[in-house]
Amino acid sequence: MATESDPRFHRSSEAILAAARELLIEQGPAAVTHAQVAKRAGIGRATVYRHWPRVDQLLAEAMATVPMPLFDAPTAPIRDWLHAELTALARLLELHDVRAVATTLAQGALWDPAMDSRRGQFAGVLSERLADALDSAAAAGEVELRTTAQSAAALAIGPIYYRSTIEREPVDSDFIDAAIDSLGVWSAPSR
Amino acid sequence: MATESDPRFHRSSEAILAAARELLIEQGPAAVTHAQVAKRAGIGRATVYRHWPRVDQLLAEAMATVPMPLFDAPTAPIRDWLHAELTALARLLELHDVRAVATTLAQGALWDPAMDSRRGQFAGVLSERLADALDSAAAAGEVELRTTAQSAAALAIGPIYYRSTIEREPVDSDFIDAAIDSLGVWSAPSR
Repeated sequence: MATESDPRFHRSSEAILAAARELLIEQGPAAVTHAQVAKRAGIGRATVYRHWPRVDQLLAEAMATVPMPLFDAPTAPIRDWLHAELTALARLLELHDVRAVATTLAQGALWDPAMDSRRGQFAGVLSERLADALDSAAAAGEVELRTTAQSAAALAIGPIYYRSTIEREPVDSDFIDAAIDSLGVWSAPSR
Repeated sequence: MATESDPRFHRSSEAILAAARELLIEQGPAAVTHAQVAKRAGIGRATVYRHWPRVDQLLAEAMATVPMPLFDAPTAPIRDWLHAELTALARLLELHDVRAVATTLAQGALWDPAMDSRRGQFAGVLSERLADALDSAAAAGEVELRTTAQSAAALAIGPIYYRSTIEREPVDSDFIDAAIDSLGVWSAPSR
């Protein structure tokens, strides 16, 4: 049996992570299971369990090394784009393992510097992308922001994150609209 | 040394929890430290560490059994009351141990039914209190709600929770105003 000091251990670790990344990019986080990762990597399922006993830990590692798909490439009208992206986020957070990654990051960050840096990386990317999109919407006259663009991520994502991880209640379209309304006065209702 | 099967172990456990509750009620969560709990309970600090190696675990236990002080007893105008309560929440979440309790609840609830029930209890109390307060504000003509009163907790608290636990950024008064604005159209600005 390979141990942590064994080069085979590192090779299988890399193979597992590569397979998890591929599945994540091609099919999304729900596809990252012990069974599918083992099959894709061409190694035994027991080996995957030995490296990552919990799939959310493997998912966190894979997510940290693939481009974040959320809030990327905004298109006008920004309100519609934002509604679609926040809906995608809400659907992702309905997946047990994504919820586990998100809450583990928040919790682990309080004690573990590596986890904290990963938390900061996720939060920073989301925050920057939303701020950029809102700044462009403001410049185009689509919205008059009520807060700084930097606050936008927390105001838009926060309610969805809280509802999903603390209340454990579903997020619907009206709820997402209310979160979008908190960002500012939008020039024309999109629906 | 007392063990878990020893009656002394249960007695010291009860004494520690009682001391933690007293400190929590009298002085707030920052006062719940190993040293102060040991002093108040009249037992050795090492015993407190043996029962609760991490202070946030003790705090979670104590918080579950004292009345929740937040969003209690609303007063008109509700907007001002809500602003004050959300500010109090933001200050609490700046405390490392309160942040730890909140994130541990969210994370642990995914695997541990006891933790999940505690999470549900916290979320339910906050949600009911906010819904009641907003319903009374709506009845008094102070606000025209944009969402259901049931969504209010997530819309008001979510941004503060996200900013505090994921972004780890400070929450200011403008930020809280934006969260309040997401709930509906308020009849007259309070400031």
